Amino acid sequence: MERPVQSPSRKIRKEGTVMFDEAYDVVVVGTGFAGLSAAIEAREAGCSVLVIEKMRVPGGNSAISGGMFAVVGSPLQAAAGVQDSPDVLAADMMRAGKGLNHPDLVRTVADHSLEAFLWTRDHLGVAYDDDLIHGGGHSIPRTYITPNCSGAAIVQAMLVKCRELGIPVRMQCALKDLVRDRTGRVVGLSVQDGYIFPMPDSGRILAVEARRGVVLASGGFSQDVAFRSALNPALDAAMDTTNHPGATAEGLVAAMRVGALPVHLSWIQLGPWTSRDEAGWGVGSMFSVLVGFPYGIMVDATTGRRFVNELTDRLSRARRICLAGRDPMVIVGAAAATRYPNLAQCLKRQVVRRYETLEDLAADQSIDLKALTATLAAYNQGVDRGADPEFGKPVKADAAHRVEPPYYLARLKPKVHYCNGGVLINPRAQVLDAQGLAPIPGLYAAGEVTGGVNGACRIQGVAICECIVFGRIAGRGVAGVGPSAIVDRSDQD
Amino acid sequence: MERPVQSPSRKIRKEGTVMFDEAYDVVVVGTGFAGLSAAIEAREAGCSVLVIEKMRVPGGNSAISGGMFAVVGSPLQAAAGVQDSPDVLAADMMRAGKGLNHPDLVRTVADHSLEAFLWTRDHLGVAYDDDLIHGGGHSIPRTYITPNCSGAAIVQAMLVKCRELGIPVRMQCALKDLVRDRTGRVVGLSVQDGYIFPMPDSGRILAVEARRGVVLASGGFSQDVAFRSALNPALDAAMDTTNHPGATAEGLVAAMRVGALPVHLSWIQLGPWTSRDEAGWGVGSMFSVLVGFPYGIMVDATTGRRFVNELTDRLSRARRICLAGRDPMVIVGAAAATRYPNLAQCLKRQVVRRYETLEDLAADQSIDLKALTATLAAYNQGVDRGADPEFGKPVKADAAHRVEPPYYLARLKPKVHYCNGGVLINPRAQVLDAQGLAPIPGLYAAGEVTGGVNGACRIQGVAICECIVFGRIAGRGVAGVGPSAIVDRSDQD
Repeated sequence: MERPVQSPSRKIRKEGTVMFDEAYDVVVVGTGFAGLSAAIEAREAGCSVLVIEKMRVPGGNSAISGGMFAVVGSPLQAAAGVQDSPDVLAADMMRAGKGLNHPDLVRTVADHSLEAFLWTRDHLGVAYDDDLIHGGGHSIPRTYITPNCSGAAIVQAMLVKCRELGIPVRMQCALKDLVRDRTGRVVGLSVQDGYIFPMPDSGRILAVEARRGVVLASGGFSQDVAFRSALNPALDAAMDTTNHPGATAEGLVAAMRVGALPVHLSWIQLGPWTSRDEAGWGVGSMFSVLVGFPYGIMVDATTGRRFVNELTDRLSRARRICLAGRDPMVIVGAAAATRYPNLAQCLKRQVVRRYETLEDLAADQSIDLKALTATLAAYNQGVDRGADPEFGKPVKADAAHRVEPPYYLARLKPKVHYCNGGVLINPRAQVLDAQGLAPIPGLYAAGEVTGGVNGACRIQGVAICECIVFGRIAGRGVAGVGPSAIVDRSDQD
Repeated sequence: MERPVQSPSRKIRKEGTVMFDEAYDVVVVGTGFAGLSAAIEAREAGCSVLVIEKMRVPGGNSAISGGMFAVVGSPLQAAAGVQDSPDVLAADMMRAGKGLNHPDLVRTVADHSLEAFLWTRDHLGVAYDDDLIHGGGHSIPRTYITPNCSGAAIVQAMLVKCRELGIPVRMQCALKDLVRDRTGRVVGLSVQDGYIFPMPDSGRILAVEARRGVVLASGGFSQDVAFRSALNPALDAAMDTTNHPGATAEGLVAAMRVGALPVHLSWIQLGPWTSRDEAGWGVGSMFSVLVGFPYGIMVDATTGRRFVNELTDRLSRARRICLAGRDPMVIVGAAAATRYPNLAQCLKRQVVRRYETLEDLAADQSIDLKALTATLAAYNQGVDRGADPEFGKPVKADAAHRVEPPYYLARLKPKVHYCNGGVLINPRAQVLDAQGLAPIPGLYAAGEVTGGVNGACRIQGVAICECIVFGRIAGRGVAGVGPSAIVDRSDQD
């Protein structure tokens, strides 16, 4: 099963095993939430750890994410009187995931979300806002957010902890191949050290031993146009994405080459909240996420009508936009819109537009005024009764939920956002072999490179949660600290 | 990239390449439609060919299939005045496949369906019935069927041709590993000769050289409970399947281990027409396919109402049954039911039941009589106008389409039927490498082991068609006869 490392300095021992240039107990691939969580846990368990990152800046998609963290049974929920339990989050995840999710993986996330959140707050010192968000796909409000609406705050806190712990984070160092020995164990990896993304042959090839194993946390492949369109031809180069440039498939493919089973790869998520008037994630997405969808309405400009519960899961929303060829816009009243801290920037970039009257809005956007007026009247009537009879969106009878002038509008266009699929793991974050479905010894994975947690559709704030939950489990598992406190608890359920 | 063959008799050359025990130009894995088509083409192009089959009987799912063949522009269509074109079939396939299908693969099937059909009829001597069937998911009638409603007739004709051509078909010989050499080329395979399904270590391991390459036609994995439930946990051991026992994943996994990209694996098809009152495909499925769905109605016994166009694609029908927890039955009138040649057998086994009156039927099946009476009246009223206003099913204003007493009823339960996903191929049937997406030299694939042709959902009669189209292309391609007449034509479009 061994794969020889193509290295100029390579020496083959008599048995055919690889001679390594460097050695650590644990090597972690990737500097997002999952990888850094694993590195911290493995180091705190006493291992020598190397973290490698192919890009020039750390954090990948984690650093540019919206910083939203779904937590079950949190202090904010307690303060707001929201009842929650792991069962409720698990049910929300399975419903959005169309039952393709593995229940034991879902349960692991749901059981450990609070512990993961408290770890970032108390052990890493991450600060969060006091607003409890009701995210798309969730049946109740349970999402925290960082003050600057970005995951960068969490990544930075993790990098600080890595420095404190003396964990080397080697930038521009790309995974080339995992090394699986004759016994089937992953014993190390070959890397391109001094790699210049995206030059395939850049850097110097080194073989690095990972005495206890490798944690793969290399993220998704939303930016990999060739790979994603092999899985779904509609997601070609014309389709924009919210992801950082390094969200490419090499890490996933390296795991597949040593036998890992990829699942749900074609379930590539389109975000329904991205703007037509800017590239990528931009400044407008968070407007839609935080105020547009919870407090406003999404209308099809060609009909002037709503067409979906604005807070259902992303897959349902994006499908209802794309399959029907709809021209979606989100409209929200001033009371809610002005809560969004970056509103001025959105207006300045014309990603969000402000209209004094519905007449102005309809004329400027070429929407049928009569239909739009009727849509708004029906919606506001429902709000006054605390209900949405047409689509069942959860609304409260308050001023923020009424869509009143002046109106704030964002024009939307779905973009490739997240890869639900990846290598299948078990609840101990061990990667499973396609042949026989047993764990591949020495190979762990966490975060977007994995599959099975989210099935057909991940819901809001679960990415950060699962990255940290499974990153920590992987870090403790590869370190041989086990069964850990984390895993113990899931075993009891 | 070479993977050493674990063989007691193995000898390693100085360069580390494998010493083979036998050598052929081409080795074909599998004896279904795809494998045998490839073998015949490669042999007729002058190659020495070995076909291996892990089971004791040849034909796999092909031999137990319903023998339905979707053909564009056929003599039967001409006689019936049905206008068809490759564009129309391609559109039907893409619609059912939810656009996940690769358009170039779809086009290849649609362009060559008639040629493939005529090849079986004129070159192999297969006979077909004179009935033109309107299959589920097709916008027009285009399906042929063999006289005994089984694919065995086609498999037998192919095996006869193999004998004529002197192609050895080695039974109980299982693919163990593909051998990819240092240049990246697939140069042969290791097999378990004398294999006894499903004993993993049975037989003697041999290394077989395939000088021009290997054609993988090992079929789907519907019987592989562990593998299919890793992809979709709902498809556990409690779920029945229509497939032969050997429909397991080893061939697919062997290709993945040498780097093939698997796509759409989680799109595992449930057949909506299978019976609750017998195991597997049984005798009742063809009753539903040939008369129940085209001429009758499917009702939910809990409501007495129809809930779907009985001739829409399989995915839509099975979803509307499973997701809503429906209790489905198909009811058809005597005029249509008695057209089904195996009706007596169905009645004898109580897979189909006959009722003189709707009262008897409703009482025996505990269906609300009033609701069922209304359902039938509305449906028959539509039939009289040649329309189905409720669900848009294509019906004709004739006696066969009216659901009149005596009634024939079959109780349905979806079962695992077909794997839409598999290794991604290109229109030349070359298997693509997950790393870089270029063809893997020397590795071809056709049939159910491949993915990309059907996307989310294969429609009726396309399996036989695609197996033969891509099997022939693979056989000519691996033989180096190229560009062949077959491929030429697709290149012109």
